[in-house]
Amino acid sequence: MKLSARNQLPGRVKAVNEGVVTAEVVIALDGGGELTAVITKKSVEELGLAAGKAVYAVVKSTEVMVAVD
Amino acid sequence: MKLSARNQLPGRVKAVNEGVVTAEVVIALDGGGELTAVITKKSVEELGLAAGKAVYAVVKSTEVMVAVD
Amino acid sequence: MKLSARNQLPGRVKAVNEGVVTAEVVIALDGGGELTAVITKKSVEELGLAAGKAVYAVVKSTEVMVAVD
Amino acid sequence: MKLSARNQLPGRVKAVNEGVVTAEVVIALDGGGELTAVITKKSVEELGLAAGKAVYAVVKSTEVMVAVD
Amino acid sequence: MKLSARNQLPGRVKAVNEGVVTAEVVIALDGGGELTAVITKKSVEELGLAAGKAVYAVVKSTEVMVAVD
Amino acid sequence: MKLSARNQLPGRVKAVNEGVVTAEVVIALDGGGELTAVITKKSVEELGLAAGKAVYAVVKSTEVMVAVD
Repeated sequence: MKLSARNQLPGRVKAVNEGVVTAEVVIALDGGGELTAVITKKSVEELGLAAGKAVYAVVKSTEVMVAVD
Repeated sequence: MKLSARNQLPGRVKAVNEGVVTAEVVIALDGGGELTAVITKKSVEELGLAAGKAVYAVVKSTEVMVAVD
Repeated sequence: MKLSARNQLPGRVKAVNEGVVTAEVVIALDGGGELTAVITKKSVEELGLAAGKAVYAVVKSTEVMVAVD
Repeated sequence: MKLSARNQLPGRVKAVNEGVVTAEVVIALDGGGELTAVITKKSVEELGLAAGKAVYAVVKSTEVMVAVD
Repeated sequence: MKLSARNQLPGRVKAVNEGVVTAEVVIALDGGGELTAVITKKSVEELGLAAGKAVYAVVKSTEVMVAVD
Repeated sequence: MKLSARNQLPGRVKAVNEGVVTAEVVIALDGGGELTAVITKKSVEELGLAAGKAVYAVVKSTEVMVAVD
């Protein structure tokens, strides 16, 4: 499957913190730095997400903001 | 200003492509890789975004998805 | 690629309306009804989107609202 | 109330899974297929959402992505 | 129609700036302050949005961030 | 830090309702009315959000919809 979302950064799951409905997935990016994703717990289970697993963090361009110091 | 959005990745503007209302800002991340942001043209002007400028790409955690191969 | 976004509805592109930065893609769902997506023009080009092409409309669950009459 | 969000698909609530803050609402679309919404638990209560209830799944166009096989 | 999105602030359209696909709608809130919405140009036309029109700015709770000085 | 998100409304935290992963923050706007934000519980802790604290509700323009009666 090829997706329109332009931002797909490779990394590895560093931690998964599960709630009742949602779960927080911390991704250590291959290039350094981290991204946190909040997705459904069902998706965590279906994708088999766990610490160490190779993943991509995916973000639609309209969801990215820009900040300057 | 300190923001609740957990994801703030440092980088530099690589390119700005302006439309009528929105603009596409390509950010070369310091850690490697790129992120594209679609923001308003007004914000591009107010922040003075142009190629080479140091910025942060900012994303709310609920907007990050996870993909596996 | 397997994506955490739970909502992936099959359909066909009905129309593409391109702006400078973004483009509007109208998708006729296989189950009936339509969905409109606003994505970057670059993604329209990279995915080769044009009327008649089989696609999926993909939506992250946190982006879906519910309404009642 | 008439809303700018272009995507409003009719269906019925199939299941509600409540967490502490958020809840997951699975909607069986009238045209076939399902959509999952993550909304606040308060909204589930205020709208009286429960299995069998007729609803609309509502999505802003800028939140819809497109995928191809 | 009653919507799950918890945030619905009353105001009046102050300005509409139309692009090709999207349009920027500036809303002067009844309580003071402004909100800018980027929606499709088609929605601007269908809702008959123009300066002076009474509207609501609507935002899903998962899209609101919090900042502190 | 200066952010591209155009909508930054001043107010005070009225209530915080914490779940496992996410938390609901109700903000009483200085101009009147309320906004509810769903953010991560970690951000609530890092920003020290509690009833009475002065904050800004921040929303990206592409996340704002418009409704008419």
